[in-house]
Amino acid sequence: MQILEVCYKSGVKVVTIYAFSIENFKRPLHEVNALMEIAKIKLSQLCQHGELMDQYGASLRILGHRSLLRQDVLEAIEQATEMTRHNDKAILNVCFPYTSRDEITTAIRDIVSSSTIPQTSPPSPSPSDSSTSTSTSTSSGKTATPGLMDIESITEKTVTRHMFTSGCPPLDLLVRTSGVERLSDFMMWQCHQDTDIVFSDSLWPQFDIWKFLPILINWGVKRRKLEKEKGDVEVRGVGMGMGVGKGGGY
Amino acid sequence: MQILEVCYKSGVKVVTIYAFSIENFKRPLHEVNALMEIAKIKLSQLCQHGELMDQYGASLRILGHRSLLRQDVLEAIEQATEMTRHNDKAILNVCFPYTSRDEITTAIRDIVSSSTIPQTSPPSPSPSDSSTSTSTSTSSGKTATPGLMDIESITEKTVTRHMFTSGCPPLDLLVRTSGVERLSDFMMWQCHQDTDIVFSDSLWPQFDIWKFLPILINWGVKRRKLEKEKGDVEVRGVGMGMGVGKGGGY
Repeated sequence: MQILEVCYKSGVKVVTIYAFSIENFKRPLHEVNALMEIAKIKLSQLCQHGELMDQYGASLRILGHRSLLRQDVLEAIEQATEMTRHNDKAILNVCFPYTSRDEITTAIRDIVSSSTIPQTSPPSPSPSDSSTSTSTSTSSGKTATPGLMDIESITEKTVTRHMFTSGCPPLDLLVRTSGVERLSDFMMWQCHQDTDIVFSDSLWPQFDIWKFLPILINWGVKRRKLEKEKGDVEVRGVGMGMGVGKGGGY
Repeated sequence: MQILEVCYKSGVKVVTIYAFSIENFKRPLHEVNALMEIAKIKLSQLCQHGELMDQYGASLRILGHRSLLRQDVLEAIEQATEMTRHNDKAILNVCFPYTSRDEITTAIRDIVSSSTIPQTSPPSPSPSDSSTSTSTSTSSGKTATPGLMDIESITEKTVTRHMFTSGCPPLDLLVRTSGVERLSDFMMWQCHQDTDIVFSDSLWPQFDIWKFLPILINWGVKRRKLEKEKGDVEVRGVGMGMGVGKGGGY
């Protein structure tokens, strides 16, 4: 909460936290269940700190493959997001359950799906007229028949628009805790040309405001040096690869 | 060349070098032309060192958006790849001209394209029969009409198969030179759960075997510690974010 506060006070618009990886579902069931209980507690704590979210106008968003979650966890998510929905100045993204590859794969499925032209009663084309195009859709719901799609119209912007972080500003700073020097399938697409990556030796519960402040200040100094001719510099997005409690994240 | 040699001697199967970013085309024309000349020189040097490539059974692959290259550069590429085509024990990937986002976007286009069912004389379906599906293709070549596609069949494996690095082993170690702590749009998809990322302060021409060896050895020690119960450890893929000469890369 202190880290969030210093971020929003410094003008950071979006903070993204890696709470639970899809990979974690491979753990023993009792561990997964324990992590889900922790998630519910964290979400209810967030509700209790509603005034902090309101103070900075921050809304909560849960990014990830929600269909993998239990009904009671989904309800806790619904309650927490509903409570902050009116805030529109800043965003707290919580990746849960998430992997970057799943996000990109989901985006690809969405792009293919969105090209579908649903036609309940397709016209009967003349075989000699090759300039017309028809498509029909099956009733399974899982199989789509995409209609006319211009391949060239799929650009990097299309992909960005289909990410869970759609509409968020670029990621400026990515902090990876736990002493391992890996991205661990976190915000790979968002890690663009100018994203600074910082590895911290601290495990998440020990990664406190005093560990975070030097990273944020150092980023500001470096960026200011790089972009001094451009004038003002502000951190727009911060991503943190941090787990929920001891067992979370990765 | 020394770095390549130590990699192949240590059993690394694939080395990937970031030679030229698509972003570099935004530079002034005379700079781009100079970089292209350097690329041609490097490719011809590689041909002269053919015996090294043969010694380790390494074949050259150029990954990237080739249609952006000049005809004479394409010919130099063709000559160099042809010379090592018979080698099948190791791979030297040179990303040129490349960005990771372009690679992923290209993969998405390929996935959409590969779902196209070309039909020169499409059957005339009955409007009442919703279980059949037809598609026709236009003559422009740019617009495709994908046929029946099962969205659920698009998985992370599909995406991996459509990357330029398709068929390569997982990326174990990524070395980023030049003292900046960014991925700079290099192998974002390949940077999987277990890829170690190492930032080096050295600029590329100064990044020599004595800078590289400690990184490789350190990786081995760390990985052995992590996976000691699994037995033998070997580096399968190494990616290096290094530019061609002073102006290259990023």
